[in-house]
Amino acid sequence: MLYMIGLGLGDAKDITVKGLEVLRRCSRVYLEAYTSVLTVGKEVLEEFYGRKLILADREEVEQEANNILKDADISDVAFLVVGDPFGATTHSDLILRATKLGIPYRVIHNASIMNAVGCCGLQLYRFGETVSVVFWTDTWRPESFFDKVKKNRQNGMHTLCLLDIKVKEQSLENLLKGRKIYEPPRYMSVNQAAQQLLEIVQNQRIRGEEPAVTEETLCVGLARVGAEDQKIAAGTLQQMCTVDLGGPLHSLIITGGSLHPLEMEMLSLFSIPESSSESQSIDGL
Amino acid sequence: MLYMIGLGLGDAKDITVKGLEVLRRCSRVYLEAYTSVLTVGKEVLEEFYGRKLILADREEVEQEANNILKDADISDVAFLVVGDPFGATTHSDLILRATKLGIPYRVIHNASIMNAVGCCGLQLYRFGETVSVVFWTDTWRPESFFDKVKKNRQNGMHTLCLLDIKVKEQSLENLLKGRKIYEPPRYMSVNQAAQQLLEIVQNQRIRGEEPAVTEETLCVGLARVGAEDQKIAAGTLQQMCTVDLGGPLHSLIITGGSLHPLEMEMLSLFSIPESSSESQSIDGL
Repeated sequence: MLYMIGLGLGDAKDITVKGLEVLRRCSRVYLEAYTSVLTVGKEVLEEFYGRKLILADREEVEQEANNILKDADISDVAFLVVGDPFGATTHSDLILRATKLGIPYRVIHNASIMNAVGCCGLQLYRFGETVSVVFWTDTWRPESFFDKVKKNRQNGMHTLCLLDIKVKEQSLENLLKGRKIYEPPRYMSVNQAAQQLLEIVQNQRIRGEEPAVTEETLCVGLARVGAEDQKIAAGTLQQMCTVDLGGPLHSLIITGGSLHPLEMEMLSLFSIPESSSESQSIDGL
Repeated sequence: MLYMIGLGLGDAKDITVKGLEVLRRCSRVYLEAYTSVLTVGKEVLEEFYGRKLILADREEVEQEANNILKDADISDVAFLVVGDPFGATTHSDLILRATKLGIPYRVIHNASIMNAVGCCGLQLYRFGETVSVVFWTDTWRPESFFDKVKKNRQNGMHTLCLLDIKVKEQSLENLLKGRKIYEPPRYMSVNQAAQQLLEIVQNQRIRGEEPAVTEETLCVGLARVGAEDQKIAAGTLQQMCTVDLGGPLHSLIITGGSLHPLEMEMLSLFSIPESSSESQSIDGL
């Protein structure tokens, strides 16, 4: 049996009791290590779970899925995913491959950023399409995701922005020379995402378009959702450029315009104090 | 401290290790019992958790929140919610009240139907606004949620339909006589939801409107997501009227039209065999 087990969002103890029992009896335990991270490292997980973890990076899962699935028809193999196995990234590929090999699978669900963002008080059912914000480079500065934000806002829906993660990146030099030397991991902060968004807004103005979002649009920045030191800050997009939310992972929500009174009241618990940022009037707060 | 603890979706062991540790040291443990249910009852939970659970129905949470929060400033109180505390129903009310009383709170997240529906293979980020389908009565047959399905489909997005739950209902007679006698709980099935949807489609045709959904629209019925005996069936809306998914809880997804090839391939794992239903050609499968 292939077990796809969600680890939740905080630390080692956010796994479910069922997930922990199952992984402890599996013959091999893989840890998917490219779409998200917990606040603790592999060693802490290994100690708490009482099992050695085999790191599976993107290459491995895509190219060596057969290794992961080896003997899973006669023994139990666990594939651990931060959040939920069908959260931001689906792992349909692995499941389809298992099914083709006649290997049964089971999913042990957990919280993912896709539902845990509800902790800021915005109602989950009022979220529209989720978008991904990627790190811009000198030559690649995609703006197309902004259309989805626009559509969501036109329909009065909030937009969850998942922020880019770069692990196992190679410098151009190392890539060209075929050296498997990797850069330190990078995680996009709410500040970086907000700055990129404001640049898109400026570009749209230059092109004479009416941007769906402005400096004053009410946003919510979230960091380390589910962890002890989680931080939530509600304020303008401009304020999101400078608010200090600490270490990764970060997510950003662009609100859909009109808020339910309960949403408003919840967000006010997290509003950025005037003094900590340039004074701004916030649409709707 | 007030702890809001998600229980996940299946049985007693779907609580997280952290959630279990916390609830075991709380002085009082409430179980929210009106928005969802697990596949096991209160007694099974009590035995596994090792704690007495106090059932909190909607009335209680709304009218006697102060009882729930009593002494939570000097001791720990747990409020257990099936799924995630901020899943389909937010419990913002209780949190806002606690905050006003100066009681700190923490949320221990878990899977909810809002993210676990990803198990059918449809990509979570392509879901639009979630809708609720309520039991119709002779005199109250709301159709307005259908506009949201329409908008989602126009934008190519899937719609998760949360199906009605009736607990602690009183018959008109008992209500009038002030007798606190309650009807057995009712949970809307995928069959019932599909039949109501098809009736709306018929009504729209009678009114000369172009319905956004037809008998042939590809849908996914899900039952007991996260439990050992979970069932998923992909087929036409017509097929959803008769497919047998077993006991509650059920959810229904109306797909957004064009599917990603991976979504398609995953859904084909769950397609209803021709023989088990009237033969239908399915849009897109």
